Amino acid sequence: MRPDYSVYLVTDRPLCGGRALMEVVAQAVQGGVTMVQLREKHADTREFVELAQALLRVVRPVGVPLLINDRIDVAMAVGADGVHVGQRDMPYADARRMLGSEAIIGLSVESLEQAREAEQWDVDYFGVSPVFATGTKTDTGDPWGLEGLRCLRRASTKPLVGIGGLGPSNAEDVLRAGADGIAVVSAICGACDPVAAAAELRRAVSAAS
Amino acid sequence: MRPDYSVYLVTDRPLCGGRALMEVVAQAVQGGVTMVQLREKHADTREFVELAQALLRVVRPVGVPLLINDRIDVAMAVGADGVHVGQRDMPYADARRMLGSEAIIGLSVESLEQAREAEQWDVDYFGVSPVFATGTKTDTGDPWGLEGLRCLRRASTKPLVGIGGLGPSNAEDVLRAGADGIAVVSAICGACDPVAAAAELRRAVSAAS
Repeated sequence: MRPDYSVYLVTDRPLCGGRALMEVVAQAVQGGVTMVQLREKHADTREFVELAQALLRVVRPVGVPLLINDRIDVAMAVGADGVHVGQRDMPYADARRMLGSEAIIGLSVESLEQAREAEQWDVDYFGVSPVFATGTKTDTGDPWGLEGLRCLRRASTKPLVGIGGLGPSNAEDVLRAGADGIAVVSAICGACDPVAAAAELRRAVSAAS
Repeated sequence: MRPDYSVYLVTDRPLCGGRALMEVVAQAVQGGVTMVQLREKHADTREFVELAQALLRVVRPVGVPLLINDRIDVAMAVGADGVHVGQRDMPYADARRMLGSEAIIGLSVESLEQAREAEQWDVDYFGVSPVFATGTKTDTGDPWGLEGLRCLRRASTKPLVGIGGLGPSNAEDVLRAGADGIAVVSAICGACDPVAAAAELRRAVSAAS
């Protein structure tokens, strides 16, 4: 069964403020998030593994897949559902070889050229990064914009998950431009009420379907 | 065949100054280093993989094993000889499960308690960390000292590789206290002449045998 990419949460512990990541993710899942990616850029490996194990206990009972950002070893250690890799992360072919054909593996594409190269690979989805400029992640290429997303939609048969500057106000536009889902960081991690924030995103995505 | 831990280089690119890591490692191997560990705390995964591949081309032709610090996925991607894990890295059992029984896996031990716990595992060697206080690595426990090393030698049957503040002046003492080898960072990476530095360490180790 093809995974449901429609409302895709990428975690950011600092953005959760004082709240535990588990709590925020549990609320996000309750609100309707369909996929979670654990992204940790500063944790040591032990902590990363422990966070991933804790998140699995939150998302697995409700059937929401957990992907790990970049770290194939962490994904393998905990038995996560897959990984998301960027252009400076583990090469896609190595990630697939290590994780096997059943794993969900997403790849960030920052240009049509990168998407064309990866189109022939068995990547499960493309992370379209960034759709709009964002303060959360600064090591990215130029934004795709809605027009760039439309071009990519015509060029690729892969599921497309938009990320970067997305929220309830533009989710519908992004879906109509060809995305299969929207990935958010601050729109949920930074929300006062993650349940409500996730539910609002879910409604916005549904409205475009 | 049991690996030769006698002069064990742990890499540190900043300490190499302007020199390429490959060049310093090639010289160290020429001087008599018997094992190399690639340690990278700031590289992205892609760069880490590329550095590991480049180092393998240097050390494999001369039969010197290459271990990767912490990152099981990097070791798997490049087919390195093994990994070295610390107490905050990937749990040992997970590392062994992923890498298989043939891989060389070393574990840092910072106390007798940690060594006793790991004694029953099939760890290939213990990194005795730190033997003396050092400026290279600051997130470590209290130094073992020579007396602590002697105690550990009596408590463990594992090969022991001392690390921390080691160089030609104290290598012989560390070997006589029970170590099977000495691991160095700055004594080679920071040396004007890595060939000579490695050769001097090799002589010091031989003198104690």
